[in-house]
Amino acid sequence: MSEPEGILGTFAQATAVESIGDEGSGRFAAEIHAGWDIGGAANGGYLMALAGRAMAEAVGRPPLSLTAHYLRPGPAGPCEIDVDIVRTGRRLATARATMIVDGKPTLELLGTFGEQVPDGGPRYWREEPVDITPYEECAPMEMSSDGGGPGLMDRLASRLHPGDGGFRRGEPTGDPTVRGWFALAGDEPIDAIGLLLAADAFPPPIFNSNIPMAWVPTVELTVHVRGTPAPGPLRVAFRNRFIHDGLLDEEGELWDSTGTLVAQSRQLSLMPRPA
Amino acid sequence: MSEPEGILGTFAQATAVESIGDEGSGRFAAEIHAGWDIGGAANGGYLMALAGRAMAEAVGRPPLSLTAHYLRPGPAGPCEIDVDIVRTGRRLATARATMIVDGKPTLELLGTFGEQVPDGGPRYWREEPVDITPYEECAPMEMSSDGGGPGLMDRLASRLHPGDGGFRRGEPTGDPTVRGWFALAGDEPIDAIGLLLAADAFPPPIFNSNIPMAWVPTVELTVHVRGTPAPGPLRVAFRNRFIHDGLLDEEGELWDSTGTLVAQSRQLSLMPRPA
Repeated sequence: MSEPEGILGTFAQATAVESIGDEGSGRFAAEIHAGWDIGGAANGGYLMALAGRAMAEAVGRPPLSLTAHYLRPGPAGPCEIDVDIVRTGRRLATARATMIVDGKPTLELLGTFGEQVPDGGPRYWREEPVDITPYEECAPMEMSSDGGGPGLMDRLASRLHPGDGGFRRGEPTGDPTVRGWFALAGDEPIDAIGLLLAADAFPPPIFNSNIPMAWVPTVELTVHVRGTPAPGPLRVAFRNRFIHDGLLDEEGELWDSTGTLVAQSRQLSLMPRPA
Repeated sequence: MSEPEGILGTFAQATAVESIGDEGSGRFAAEIHAGWDIGGAANGGYLMALAGRAMAEAVGRPPLSLTAHYLRPGPAGPCEIDVDIVRTGRRLATARATMIVDGKPTLELLGTFGEQVPDGGPRYWREEPVDITPYEECAPMEMSSDGGGPGLMDRLASRLHPGDGGFRRGEPTGDPTVRGWFALAGDEPIDAIGLLLAADAFPPPIFNSNIPMAWVPTVELTVHVRGTPAPGPLRVAFRNRFIHDGLLDEEGELWDSTGTLVAQSRQLSLMPRPA
């Protein structure tokens, strides 16, 4: 795996974790890096990736299904991730973890970890990979408009499907769907930890609805890893399916350049009163 | 709330938990009741409901989003549920729990709890309630065919949409979808805990695919509670969306008699080699 490096630092660097405490204690030190944020609060996928890497190191396997509950915003600075291994089996291992910032639990996680095992076995896909404009013909995603310096979108080489970004000009499509391409800056490869970031690194699809909404705090995010991505940008689609009574879901599918589903996500978020 | 009671015992009785240990210790004793099983292994939704009730009692609020990872089969008999409250806020509380059977962790859970707050706010539904044959015109679900005495289906008054049960006669539809009505026996009301059972109390939809499969062990199940059910059977649909490389998802939507989405579920399961 190449180690691309730029002025902004790579995703691998921004999600590095260090084992602390006694051997096998499950305690990790890490840093929530500045610049992996949307308007000051660290991106939820980035926080899940950071904690997920500590959990993966503790159990010695990549994430297969990981759930995070978001307790507080994650400001840039040092954090600790305490991992507790619940069970280790032949193929799968289950662990829970708490990310602690300034002495306070910020993210609580539960996941099962295990290698992907490609086989020639039975296959059924209800849906084919989302059909979008080729990467090269999509415009780069603009910087966040808050003028607060580089943010998440500068760490990524992601692109929006033309039309799905109209909400930025006050022209939502009316369909709460956001499609596009996910890529890390500098062609950095996307592994299972990168998929955790990719699952929550696009604008909320509700921005394309006719419901005015300034922000959408996530309560819970679950990511199922379904494959090891081949090189190249991921083809992604995120959709709200049910919005009512102050809550909304969002589900996502992520496909690699060979057309294999490599991750699927679902989250539940709070709907603050309209801005 | 009425307390229906029959020879088999109610769902409320079968998911009763008792606080043990010091006040506020978060330790609960419970019993995995015989007869809430499929061929001897307690149903996954029933186990989640049992642990979810202990968590809800510990935090004093009903489940909003609950994830369970299944570590071992749950045999009938006594169990202990250890609940650890991670954060209590004004509207939401987050807790994790371990269900322990015979000294071994059997289910590990993480959830956020809070009341449903119906409002007249923004609403968007990508899909309408699943369109199925009326409850009265669907046949009752047959007993499990293993001849091992009453099982889960005898605790329920659930019914399958005609055609979706053909796999029992060796006639799968070819579309891994199972639709029908969920109801508890004796018209017992369905609350948020009952929704946890309902989310995993139908035959796996893969039985309607052309992939031969005898059993499908669940790795992870997440249920989002989206409303408080009105009286009457729930209209439900469960579908596999992506099956490959030894893993399959299953997602479900559950609607009440007024046509409100009251829960949605997603699970990730292992696909054993074909029988």
